Amino acid sequence: MLAANRPPLPTNPARNTSGTSPVGSKLLVLNAGSSSLKFKIFGTEPLVAGSGGMFDRIGDAANCTLKASVPDGSGKAKKWELKIPAKDHVAAMQSIMDFITENVSSDFASEVMAVGHRIVHGLDISQPVLLTDESIAKIKEAATFAPLHNPPGLQGIDAAQKVFGTVPQVAVFDTAFHQTMPPHAYMYGLPHELYEQHKIRRYGFHGTSHQYLTEKAAELLGKPVSETNVITCHLGNGSSVAAVRGGRCVDTSMGMTPLEGLLMGTRCGDIDPAVVLHIQSQLGLSAKETDTLLNKKSGLLGVTGNNDLRAVIAAAEQGDARSALGLAMFVYRVRKYIGAYVAVLDGQVDAVIFSAGIGENSALIRGLVLDRMQGLGMQLDPERNAAAVGGRTADIAAPSSRVRLLVIPTDEELSIAQQTLQVVTRGTAMAA
Amino acid sequence: MLAANRPPLPTNPARNTSGTSPVGSKLLVLNAGSSSLKFKIFGTEPLVAGSGGMFDRIGDAANCTLKASVPDGSGKAKKWELKIPAKDHVAAMQSIMDFITENVSSDFASEVMAVGHRIVHGLDISQPVLLTDESIAKIKEAATFAPLHNPPGLQGIDAAQKVFGTVPQVAVFDTAFHQTMPPHAYMYGLPHELYEQHKIRRYGFHGTSHQYLTEKAAELLGKPVSETNVITCHLGNGSSVAAVRGGRCVDTSMGMTPLEGLLMGTRCGDIDPAVVLHIQSQLGLSAKETDTLLNKKSGLLGVTGNNDLRAVIAAAEQGDARSALGLAMFVYRVRKYIGAYVAVLDGQVDAVIFSAGIGENSALIRGLVLDRMQGLGMQLDPERNAAAVGGRTADIAAPSSRVRLLVIPTDEELSIAQQTLQVVTRGTAMAA
Repeated sequence: MLAANRPPLPTNPARNTSGTSPVGSKLLVLNAGSSSLKFKIFGTEPLVAGSGGMFDRIGDAANCTLKASVPDGSGKAKKWELKIPAKDHVAAMQSIMDFITENVSSDFASEVMAVGHRIVHGLDISQPVLLTDESIAKIKEAATFAPLHNPPGLQGIDAAQKVFGTVPQVAVFDTAFHQTMPPHAYMYGLPHELYEQHKIRRYGFHGTSHQYLTEKAAELLGKPVSETNVITCHLGNGSSVAAVRGGRCVDTSMGMTPLEGLLMGTRCGDIDPAVVLHIQSQLGLSAKETDTLLNKKSGLLGVTGNNDLRAVIAAAEQGDARSALGLAMFVYRVRKYIGAYVAVLDGQVDAVIFSAGIGENSALIRGLVLDRMQGLGMQLDPERNAAAVGGRTADIAAPSSRVRLLVIPTDEELSIAQQTLQVVTRGTAMAA
Repeated sequence: MLAANRPPLPTNPARNTSGTSPVGSKLLVLNAGSSSLKFKIFGTEPLVAGSGGMFDRIGDAANCTLKASVPDGSGKAKKWELKIPAKDHVAAMQSIMDFITENVSSDFASEVMAVGHRIVHGLDISQPVLLTDESIAKIKEAATFAPLHNPPGLQGIDAAQKVFGTVPQVAVFDTAFHQTMPPHAYMYGLPHELYEQHKIRRYGFHGTSHQYLTEKAAELLGKPVSETNVITCHLGNGSSVAAVRGGRCVDTSMGMTPLEGLLMGTRCGDIDPAVVLHIQSQLGLSAKETDTLLNKKSGLLGVTGNNDLRAVIAAAEQGDARSALGLAMFVYRVRKYIGAYVAVLDGQVDAVIFSAGIGENSALIRGLVLDRMQGLGMQLDPERNAAAVGGRTADIAAPSSRVRLLVIPTDEELSIAQQTLQVVTRGTAMAA
């Protein structure tokens, strides 16, 4: 589709990152969910985030809303919340363009150098890719494994294509960073033909975040990424842990889908696979209903009645027993993965990283996860931990701790912008 | 059933363990599988194993075989392998009795003080129990979770009841030792009503072995069991790991059923629960067929084509890539559980124990599992490890190792005999 329409690439790489280039100097990052479309604009000299926002409840005309934030140049931002009906992602994209043209830049369409898309599942693709017929076909193929996530991603691509025509588009995959896992970590103990014929294996997700955190940690530790061993804990509404050796992922807690691993807002995480069949037979549920139960009605929501960890913590502090249980389960599973990954990394761990909504903001959770972990070389400094809130980078380990304990705000959009820029520049260089 | 028939218990506990007691001085331990019935006879003063054997292929008249071994008094044993058709467990039990009467003791029926049964699933029962209508009903109820294992156990009970009439019978559960797990370890991240109404939770198995190993380890370490923290690795055709704090199980790798956890002979162990539903839809399998695939066609068999780890090791040494993968997966998962359980035990681990067929005999596997685990306080002595084969107890750690690394042959039948004796003696004491 796009390959045929793509314009000849400029022969001078420098033009591509130049503000005066006819092919534009800005990047647009899009992250499409089933009924949402997030966007963020990046300048490229230097790479820096500008305006951004989110269309929510696409398809629900009465409630469809565009929230947006535009820097006013003085370090503050002007904010909008607009009711705009959008029947689909194409209409939402067009409304976003109208908003940007009116409030950010009247010639935005011609300023855009490339569009970067967050795509959840990329099968065995290990790098961000320029969107071509071939790579779009692969995203469609991978939709089997991410039926809730890849189709909206494809709608976002379609919408951007309709609006931007031949501007290069790049897909950045949540699975890509995990492609360096060795087979003994990514293979399941299933009949081999399920891998060969059906591609059933561990893929892992949140890769853009785990990669970003790894690179930031290396920077903070003053080590080359290629010599950095870390355990990255991305703890949000969806949560995952990764073991990273020499800057490359060697294992991660999410699996073929984002259902495996930690306890999440509404996802069960690790369970006996026999439970899945047992639920179907005991409750008379179809496979689809069981999928909904495991993905949408389980996790913190299933255990405590609330999918938001902050509310669970508050209820636990009020003495609610099931909330206390949910909190303890959440913490316990993070501890187990950290212990497992210390073994995976042969005990050679430079740092454990905490990030995303919970990891960046909950000193309580970090304190519980890291309590009595001295036997694993981790000694928390309670004061530093308590002070590390509000999305700032911090080392919360005691000076004596063998392993550094870092809080690093993740920035998936910045990482997508970086990777998009690399692909476009590389593409240019290759064409030159 | 049995409660009504049970004879009045003797009022003098001493008589019960006396060789001259009319209620007998021997224990018979039975372990019934779907088409097998293992037996072992124990003397009780002191508790020592005597003759034993196994009926195999029950119901298959042409191939039904009784293998038995009877000590000859000189430290050796006389062995039999007899083709005896047995249409069911009752017939097999009767043939075993005929064999014993002819070759071990002509008055065996009156010498038996109690029969101890290995029962796989006991739901929330935390102790061995005297078989009564109530406890038998519970075993039937638990059969929902162990459809392949509890029904044969009940057939074994029925067979023993027909042969021994009113002799007390005791059930020893594979799940019992794990009942001390805290809720944050045994609860799954599922809707709470699945636990309340359907009893879906982690139960754990091989409990008799993990308990035996814990007690033996405490003895070897010269510590009270109540102060002993160990990680017990029962590695056989079925494999599980347990974390034990102060002699009490706090976590284990098997779950609601024996399918969860490590890679096993034919069982998949840990997988993304979404894979279960994906397999059903992609391959068009029923829930039952999927269950068979995960329990009977997966694990080492699925990965390598062979369910026997010795054969897998041999093939890997010959250069077979899939066998090398299966071996690496097996080892890797044991390492991950050991790491996770070090975190669970707050780094306070006295010893890691290796047992069962693989754990007792494969220095290669132990060596790979314990390679580069110094960061977790574990330092293997390669020579001691190489020498520890053939079912002997050994400490294979280097003297400098903070954590002891022990090989301990497990003896589930002895443990069942011990527990059966305790129940019968306690029952007597309570009645007195």
